Amino acid sequence: MSFEIYLVRHGLAGQFGDYEDDAVRPLTEEGQKKTRKVAQRLLDFGVTFDRIYTSPYQRALQTAQILQSVGLQSVGLGSTIEPALEPGLEIYDDLHPDGDQAVVLDRLANVRQLGLRVAIVGHEPDLSQLAATLVFGQPCDNLTLKKAGIIGLTAPIEGQLVGACQLFWLAPPRLLLG
Amino acid sequence: MSFEIYLVRHGLAGQFGDYEDDAVRPLTEEGQKKTRKVAQRLLDFGVTFDRIYTSPYQRALQTAQILQSVGLQSVGLGSTIEPALEPGLEIYDDLHPDGDQAVVLDRLANVRQLGLRVAIVGHEPDLSQLAATLVFGQPCDNLTLKKAGIIGLTAPIEGQLVGACQLFWLAPPRLLLG
Repeated sequence: MSFEIYLVRHGLAGQFGDYEDDAVRPLTEEGQKKTRKVAQRLLDFGVTFDRIYTSPYQRALQTAQILQSVGLQSVGLGSTIEPALEPGLEIYDDLHPDGDQAVVLDRLANVRQLGLRVAIVGHEPDLSQLAATLVFGQPCDNLTLKKAGIIGLTAPIEGQLVGACQLFWLAPPRLLLG
Repeated sequence: MSFEIYLVRHGLAGQFGDYEDDAVRPLTEEGQKKTRKVAQRLLDFGVTFDRIYTSPYQRALQTAQILQSVGLQSVGLGSTIEPALEPGLEIYDDLHPDGDQAVVLDRLANVRQLGLRVAIVGHEPDLSQLAATLVFGQPCDNLTLKKAGIIGLTAPIEGQLVGACQLFWLAPPRLLLG
């Protein structure tokens, strides 16, 4: 039994500054299209997610909904953490930009004994710093996660989580789509 | 100008123990085939290498030759470090299994100001530990590099090299080939 964590950065979104509230900045049409292609490709690889946790920001939420819409989400699992939008898709307040990494880590630690595959949809630099913490034991800025890119990690289901995860994928859309 | 380092693990090789000398253990036919597909895919992405440094072990040398045979090597650059087999392909003794990482780091530091793209073909866990050193500042066992898999890094062309590189790709053949 293993616990797999996939960190997915939201796709290309509208210009910062064009929206009064950054939380409502949506994916562009191109961003939606590319994100859908990436999601489809993940499905081709046989990836599915038991849970999809997403930042409440519009561009992340749309990205999570695209993952869900292509069928990347396993069915039949109820919500564990936040009020579920639909089965398997959960808004996760601490995933907003500059959210509290410690809270995210706590929650991951709490669900991992179920041996799930979870997707976390959010923002940079938060996601790559979370990955660095999980893999290396402390955050750093040296992992490059592009928009609609993905990081794949396996985590031990018990014991130390921080610094104990294996990084097995780090890919921009270009690498996934060819 | 940037310096890019691609770490490529040798493809699937014959069984350990079937050969008296591990240094002559060759790629299997399947290993050659998959490595060629990966190399072709890298070429499709527009990747080329100004230099290909390889471990002297047969399975790595064959992998390097496959990278070269599909045209991943830029032409016209002479040898800088070790006696060149052919332009751009250089046997690099410290890349044998359990080689001296400090020597490899020194040599990388010495060529980077040319702003090259180099491939380093070798073994595990040496390559992923080299990547961890370059990215996080010290080796660790938490990066998974599969056979014929690749890690892509950008390095600063001056100043500190250790802990100062960006990891932008980490992919097994499966992710590259779909």
